[in-house]
Amino acid sequence: MGRIAITDGMSETAISKLKHLGHDVVVEHYDKNDLESGILSEFDAIVVRSATKISKKVLDSLDPNRNNLKFIGRAGVGVDNIDIQTASKLGIFVCNTPKASTQSVVEMTLGHLFSSVRHLSRADRDLRSGIWSKKQLKGSELSGKKLGLVGFGRISKGVANISHHLGMDIHYFDPFIDENGQFTKHNSIEDLFDECTHISIHCNLTPETEGLVNLDLIKRMPTFDKEGVECGNHIVNCARGGIINEKDALIALNDGYLTSLALDVFEIEPATGQQLLQHEKFNGSPHIAASTKEAQNRIGIEMVELIDEFFRGEKPSTALN
Amino acid sequence: MGRIAITDGMSETAISKLKHLGHDVVVEHYDKNDLESGILSEFDAIVVRSATKISKKVLDSLDPNRNNLKFIGRAGVGVDNIDIQTASKLGIFVCNTPKASTQSVVEMTLGHLFSSVRHLSRADRDLRSGIWSKKQLKGSELSGKKLGLVGFGRISKGVANISHHLGMDIHYFDPFIDENGQFTKHNSIEDLFDECTHISIHCNLTPETEGLVNLDLIKRMPTFDKEGVECGNHIVNCARGGIINEKDALIALNDGYLTSLALDVFEIEPATGQQLLQHEKFNGSPHIAASTKEAQNRIGIEMVELIDEFFRGEKPSTALN
Repeated sequence: MGRIAITDGMSETAISKLKHLGHDVVVEHYDKNDLESGILSEFDAIVVRSATKISKKVLDSLDPNRNNLKFIGRAGVGVDNIDIQTASKLGIFVCNTPKASTQSVVEMTLGHLFSSVRHLSRADRDLRSGIWSKKQLKGSELSGKKLGLVGFGRISKGVANISHHLGMDIHYFDPFIDENGQFTKHNSIEDLFDECTHISIHCNLTPETEGLVNLDLIKRMPTFDKEGVECGNHIVNCARGGIINEKDALIALNDGYLTSLALDVFEIEPATGQQLLQHEKFNGSPHIAASTKEAQNRIGIEMVELIDEFFRGEKPSTALN
Repeated sequence: MGRIAITDGMSETAISKLKHLGHDVVVEHYDKNDLESGILSEFDAIVVRSATKISKKVLDSLDPNRNNLKFIGRAGVGVDNIDIQTASKLGIFVCNTPKASTQSVVEMTLGHLFSSVRHLSRADRDLRSGIWSKKQLKGSELSGKKLGLVGFGRISKGVANISHHLGMDIHYFDPFIDENGQFTKHNSIEDLFDECTHISIHCNLTPETEGLVNLDLIKRMPTFDKEGVECGNHIVNCARGGIINEKDALIALNDGYLTSLALDVFEIEPATGQQLLQHEKFNGSPHIAASTKEAQNRIGIEMVELIDEFFRGEKPSTALN
């Protein structure tokens, strides 16, 4: 058994389990100076979320003569805060818990879709201001509409399955995924936007996807459904900030090229103060798509399993290096 | 062909269709004095929404010697604004369009459910106020939770089907509906509330259901799911105002007996100013569950069919008398 640092918290159940398995568990947040002083050498494994930055400098500070650290676990999905390349050179496993939050993000995406087309945030805002805006808030149904998914991984497929049962017609664009018989694959993102009144983003942020959804693309979207109903056009992003160009999105909302925009993620986070957040047809949330009790519990359970694999001398099943 | 008054508007497509069929269509709102002066005698049929009140006085003012009115169509569901008893005595059909808005109300209910458990309205409100409340807004998933449906008619079954695909465990209470093998029927509303962390109301407002959901019932709800996750307890009402006792609901929110409440309908509408609307865990909308372009279109199409049946000498298929 080993010594494990939990620096950004983890579910209590998971921490108890690790202790029960005989590990020496230290739950403590270390600041940059601590981390860069080689303090992690004393641990066999460390579990972080996004707050602890495991930079090159942190890894280079590990004492080559008496370093124990061979496992970095990210309790969550994104590993932007970990220098995987340097970790690999030092023979340190880096792994994450990619499946644990899927259902939470799927549900958040659906929530934003429903909320957008029925004006739920504005409705509540108006009621709180003493305004009964029934006549101004005619919405549209999701059933019968074409939903275009940018990226077709685990989360996107989850959204597709529920939306399909809701009566939506599912389309997707993903150059890395083979055809899926049930839904309609498009060979370019332009084709997808030409076809769909509703778009949801589910790809990674990469140099190729940064700013991918811009004014040109938004302008291509139809605003009538196949029955001739003017349902407008709607975009949701619960993936990563920056895939949608926020400046263009604001122009599109102001100039009537976009009917609604829902963002859980932003180019710069925390997002505060920008004009977009005040637009009547904007619906926002502060990067909470994976922030549920269930997802945090599953992350803990999955992390305990990964740590167990590591101490049994196996390669952790979600190792990224 | 006949003379038809449309007093509260109807979809343009439907009005064109009626004209195309050779009817003389008058689209005009009449006020109380006009209506009580016997003006409707000149029409064979009238189509209203909720604004035109067809009271006993209005019907009694019809000229017995030269009255043509034999059809009152309600473009929508609720017929509280029509004196059906007096209409029956005069041999006037009263009919509505009960199916046209089902999908819209189903989707609104789901929207409020998602929005409640993920704090979407508060998230948007905070962002607009410059607050990044990520840490305060941990939510819970719907998947795996027990959804209790009060009433199990068309709308409720629609909610059940989608929620089931989402992974919810469906329970219902409806003394007028036989057992449905797929979902769990309860024999009392107390049993339903004892079992379910999430409740959605889908019954009519009657003397029996007025104030049915009170503090005693809310206090019975569990706040942990079957995995032991503390998901809290949540109630949605997109049916009719008054089924939930609003005073009790506010006490329940204030005293922690209820985690969230979403209302599209209120004891008194328009609802403005009451304390409940300001509660952090309240999510409101101004009676817009059926207010979509698609529902309005379908209502128009259905009404044209009913008028057609009437002029062919048949009893309109949704006649209530």
